[in-house]
Amino acid sequence: MSKKVKIGVLGATGVVGQNYLRLLEGHPWFEIADIAASPRSAGKTYEEAAGPKWQMPILIPDNIKDVIVRDVQDLDSIPDDLSFVFSAINMPTKDQIKEAEIKYAEKGIPVISNNSAHRWTSDVPMIMGEINHNHTDIIPIQQKHRGFDKGGFIVVKPNCSLQSYLTTIYALEVAGYKIDKLILTTLQAISGAGYPGVPSLDVVDNIVPYIGGEEEKTEQEPHKILGKVGVDGIINDDSIQISATCTRVPVVDGHTACVNMKFKDKVPSKEEIIKIWKEFKSYPQEKDLSFAPKQPIIYFNNIDRPQPKKDRDNDKGMAVSVGRLRDDNIFDYKFVALSHNTVRGAAGGSILTAEILKSKGYIK
Amino acid sequence: MSKKVKIGVLGATGVVGQNYLRLLEGHPWFEIADIAASPRSAGKTYEEAAGPKWQMPILIPDNIKDVIVRDVQDLDSIPDDLSFVFSAINMPTKDQIKEAEIKYAEKGIPVISNNSAHRWTSDVPMIMGEINHNHTDIIPIQQKHRGFDKGGFIVVKPNCSLQSYLTTIYALEVAGYKIDKLILTTLQAISGAGYPGVPSLDVVDNIVPYIGGEEEKTEQEPHKILGKVGVDGIINDDSIQISATCTRVPVVDGHTACVNMKFKDKVPSKEEIIKIWKEFKSYPQEKDLSFAPKQPIIYFNNIDRPQPKKDRDNDKGMAVSVGRLRDDNIFDYKFVALSHNTVRGAAGGSILTAEILKSKGYIK
Amino acid sequence: MSKKVKIGVLGATGVVGQNYLRLLEGHPWFEIADIAASPRSAGKTYEEAAGPKWQMPILIPDNIKDVIVRDVQDLDSIPDDLSFVFSAINMPTKDQIKEAEIKYAEKGIPVISNNSAHRWTSDVPMIMGEINHNHTDIIPIQQKHRGFDKGGFIVVKPNCSLQSYLTTIYALEVAGYKIDKLILTTLQAISGAGYPGVPSLDVVDNIVPYIGGEEEKTEQEPHKILGKVGVDGIINDDSIQISATCTRVPVVDGHTACVNMKFKDKVPSKEEIIKIWKEFKSYPQEKDLSFAPKQPIIYFNNIDRPQPKKDRDNDKGMAVSVGRLRDDNIFDYKFVALSHNTVRGAAGGSILTAEILKSKGYIK
Amino acid sequence: MSKKVKIGVLGATGVVGQNYLRLLEGHPWFEIADIAASPRSAGKTYEEAAGPKWQMPILIPDNIKDVIVRDVQDLDSIPDDLSFVFSAINMPTKDQIKEAEIKYAEKGIPVISNNSAHRWTSDVPMIMGEINHNHTDIIPIQQKHRGFDKGGFIVVKPNCSLQSYLTTIYALEVAGYKIDKLILTTLQAISGAGYPGVPSLDVVDNIVPYIGGEEEKTEQEPHKILGKVGVDGIINDDSIQISATCTRVPVVDGHTACVNMKFKDKVPSKEEIIKIWKEFKSYPQEKDLSFAPKQPIIYFNNIDRPQPKKDRDNDKGMAVSVGRLRDDNIFDYKFVALSHNTVRGAAGGSILTAEILKSKGYIK
Repeated sequence: MSKKVKIGVLGATGVVGQNYLRLLEGHPWFEIADIAASPRSAGKTYEEAAGPKWQMPILIPDNIKDVIVRDVQDLDSIPDDLSFVFSAINMPTKDQIKEAEIKYAEKGIPVISNNSAHRWTSDVPMIMGEINHNHTDIIPIQQKHRGFDKGGFIVVKPNCSLQSYLTTIYALEVAGYKIDKLILTTLQAISGAGYPGVPSLDVVDNIVPYIGGEEEKTEQEPHKILGKVGVDGIINDDSIQISATCTRVPVVDGHTACVNMKFKDKVPSKEEIIKIWKEFKSYPQEKDLSFAPKQPIIYFNNIDRPQPKKDRDNDKGMAVSVGRLRDDNIFDYKFVALSHNTVRGAAGGSILTAEILKSKGYIK
Repeated sequence: MSKKVKIGVLGATGVVGQNYLRLLEGHPWFEIADIAASPRSAGKTYEEAAGPKWQMPILIPDNIKDVIVRDVQDLDSIPDDLSFVFSAINMPTKDQIKEAEIKYAEKGIPVISNNSAHRWTSDVPMIMGEINHNHTDIIPIQQKHRGFDKGGFIVVKPNCSLQSYLTTIYALEVAGYKIDKLILTTLQAISGAGYPGVPSLDVVDNIVPYIGGEEEKTEQEPHKILGKVGVDGIINDDSIQISATCTRVPVVDGHTACVNMKFKDKVPSKEEIIKIWKEFKSYPQEKDLSFAPKQPIIYFNNIDRPQPKKDRDNDKGMAVSVGRLRDDNIFDYKFVALSHNTVRGAAGGSILTAEILKSKGYIK
Repeated sequence: MSKKVKIGVLGATGVVGQNYLRLLEGHPWFEIADIAASPRSAGKTYEEAAGPKWQMPILIPDNIKDVIVRDVQDLDSIPDDLSFVFSAINMPTKDQIKEAEIKYAEKGIPVISNNSAHRWTSDVPMIMGEINHNHTDIIPIQQKHRGFDKGGFIVVKPNCSLQSYLTTIYALEVAGYKIDKLILTTLQAISGAGYPGVPSLDVVDNIVPYIGGEEEKTEQEPHKILGKVGVDGIINDDSIQISATCTRVPVVDGHTACVNMKFKDKVPSKEEIIKIWKEFKSYPQEKDLSFAPKQPIIYFNNIDRPQPKKDRDNDKGMAVSVGRLRDDNIFDYKFVALSHNTVRGAAGGSILTAEILKSKGYIK
Repeated sequence: MSKKVKIGVLGATGVVGQNYLRLLEGHPWFEIADIAASPRSAGKTYEEAAGPKWQMPILIPDNIKDVIVRDVQDLDSIPDDLSFVFSAINMPTKDQIKEAEIKYAEKGIPVISNNSAHRWTSDVPMIMGEINHNHTDIIPIQQKHRGFDKGGFIVVKPNCSLQSYLTTIYALEVAGYKIDKLILTTLQAISGAGYPGVPSLDVVDNIVPYIGGEEEKTEQEPHKILGKVGVDGIINDDSIQISATCTRVPVVDGHTACVNMKFKDKVPSKEEIIKIWKEFKSYPQEKDLSFAPKQPIIYFNNIDRPQPKKDRDNDKGMAVSVGRLRDDNIFDYKFVALSHNTVRGAAGGSILTAEILKSKGYIK
């Protein structure tokens, strides 16, 4: 590849934006050419704007430090040769975010968004690379429908809370074992709430058994992700019933889900399930994409795994780690699954989506 | 009451033993007259023996500091006027513990044990004060059966992991709403593992989704607690199916349970359930026992409660705190329950049992 | 005492205010008769106003729950029979706080303030009960000077960061051993920053080696506390040089100070120092005040004490816990000291000051 | 370089040993060819022996998993072509460790040890790559003196607690500014105590102001490191007086030191100090060694840095991060320094030493 694609990061000073900058360092295809944020940050160097709230375990990359932050709302100053943007913008209302992302798409800029605003927009695909990469088929429909005639479009990623377990469920479904019901409790990391996010008095020597809106997202978003591309939009698949309890625990990164699982009819053996998980591969692996985990689901025989601190970074933070598959005396099986919420569940997952879009020719 | 009853604490130097000493300070009925521990501690003052591993948030009480620790296995030196003992002894095997506790009962000393060794001994009641105080009726049978002809007997307390939710379930059952199934995930405090217990590298910025033996106890012990006194022993009641996942989280004290609950036939409304919980009272409340929480189940309307740090000490650590009762799209309801594992779930619960036993005349 | 004194709490909904309510429950002399806060809270019941941010390890006391919060700036609605107020008010600028507190004093209401606004007002005493209780002698001067002719006045408490070590230093000074230099590093609890305060991403698996303004307070406030009452105000005593580094650590409550200490000329032996500390008593102990720790300085021989979790609550959180006194190869000695920052260092310390003021007749 | 050097790791199953395996993955010069541990582990695969206690944030490398662990005491089975070993062995007594390491040296195997056993052996250099790389000059003397005639020798690394600050001090000394006195307090990570190490009850919501032996090491080891090679051994340099307080805090990795610093005569300006630190380079940088940080001392202008979570991994965990240089009203300056205790302060530091030894021809 002779030349890298120029890309932008909207909302680059927040924690998700910081993760994009960290993860995109040295990316083989993408090169950051535009850094945008709120008017308050605009005009400053990135270091001035983001330095005081920089949360990454690396220093601000040298090639980013002195870049002047662009006002995310100033569409006239978008660089000409920008191929697409990652959006981590934050605004007072969802409608404002929706509108801002639509404006970029109208200008011909594909938007890959971390925000929840467009997740239930019917013609916007909500992509998890290994599961519904083919939902990109809705893009031409979206463009036609909305008059995005300059090549722009919007795709989004789902909530981080479901990414620890949904790939494991999907792998069983494609292997022919239909799931009926899932009851799950998540133990979610503090980084999921951004910065300043969760007050320390709430999670030092404490857990909070409530995260606003999270249970609804965990229960409902899978229905769209597992759905099909219809003529007007994604057609949801509600065949799996999901009941979630979401809690916040004193862990920096890595969401854990404790799952009880009931199959519809055929119930595979434990050995079959583990085999299916270990062998599961999909489009990102077939195309050998840069952010694709080699093995999307890593199963542990160790009785006390997965654990956030030890397993969140497996395969660059892009693999789902699973363990403790055992008989359930009410449903069929129980297990524990974990994924890195700010990598697999946020910036990393979106970068993988961008790689899929490029691989399929949707972005140039 | 003119004179306090003299009691002993076996295994007084460990964390559970320390909790007994802390909680019994100033008790209206009981006075510590015997402190026993392993041969390694025997002959030392309590401060010498327990000081280096003292974990309580108070200093060693002045009246305990200089007491000489007795060898727990030396039955000849048990003080004459000892009314009963709390047992928190720890030995290499369960059989050794069983045997040691039996020896005390044979000597005429009632034993109220925190250990799991005798939990499945059929004629040993496993008591949670508000639920099965009437299981004390098995005591005469136990004494006859085993030839404990000097007034001794053994009662035990159940595992701490189930104490956060079982009272809430029992309250509904006695109100006429039979439970069919419970799926639950616990988030358990580190103090549950004693000292040194859980290595800090396992729970700083981490959770461990496994606690050896805990899921089995959580699923099975309720069957005995909810059972009936039969002619030879307790007859288990297996009518509620329970499936548990037990995890360890970085919280010092307080076990949380996230519960999904399905009723057998009649399903009460949310308002009824909350009313039942708020009004639930039992023998300990009727007799106004010293360690009885005034309101055994405290329900919170606040959306983010209960929380370990804020709620574990409710009503001296003896109340169960409950919140987030909401519809479940698979079972009937979901809720979150919490109790203090080393107070309600250990030493405090046993002290309440002792008060019941005294109130009923089993101890003098 | 036939009747309790009626008091008020200004800024009652914040964390310091909550601590006042918690600590004053059942106080033998004082009874809460007025709860005031910002206009945003005014008119609501205390539970409505403070419930969502209630941080205490107890439930809101029943006698407080339904009290209607008064607007702190509405001086006309102050109850007539109010004896004095504890002030934990928070406003955008220090000048606003100063002014608000002065208005209460002008109305004849003594103000005992936790705020730093008036700490360097020369005729306002900054009181640590065991050290400079006699600084109350400035009160008549303050009243005359400022025309507080209805019995009102202002006293303040010093910063929490110095309260772990200053009593130990003062005890040596009054015993005749003058201190020359102190180099110290503090490890401060998160509750010191209030709520929401420190973001969890800053202190889970992390420490922050900086707390704004804290080092200056730690170094300078002792000079006023150790000073003398002059004709116009407190005359500072700068004879001890102090150099402080203040850090934030993942501890809920309890500030620790690691101290290196150099004497001016006479250097006591280790045994003498420990004896002086153990025997140190002052006015609060002589008068047997309710919030006076029996032994203001508790010395530990255990090599690894004091520790926040184990020692912050010593003597109801009012004692200073000290340990590890050892030779220093640069200065004379090193030691570690600890106190509870929200009890001894905040609300509890101010309640003790109120008891002193009542004992001396300044409040009725 | 056509072929990698074959090396061994003694004590490979402990936390330090695990770090060697993690850090040596893909090393350009060194290839692990021998894994040895205690007799209990010997004969098992590495995964069997170390799996249950594996603490690294990566999975056990594939090329290591199935290696059969050698008994560290079985010298006959040492592979023939082993170039050198890293020693992280742990034995009941220091004398046993000393002896075991000597035996390897006698067999002709250079030993680079993490253990403290030989730190005060006069002819064994205690190396920090950027400071006293020239202490390797003692190696021929050691070999002659001890009859290590087959090419073996022993070098050690110093304690992790001093590595956060000593490079900053050395940089000033070589720039001509002699240090007189250092008073410092360390806040040390739990990984420094190995596994199981620090019990979680000691550091969740707590700090422990004592680490056995650590203050002595922190105060004394610098004297040897800053010393000179004499005819028989290293001649210590005691010109800097050091007084240390060492505490344990709830941080996973990264030791922080709060330092008060007094110069002997010439006192540089703040700007000079920062310039000296930023420009400091030494042998590892000149030779561009693989584990050499590009900039050994990174200075932060941000007022709240360095912080363990954000800065421990700077330059692959090999750089020292420094900040908060400010005037001290007792000594000359204060600052805060931080280094990664298990990388820079342990396995990584030793790998850098190995690279120096190879670069100088001491290992082949």
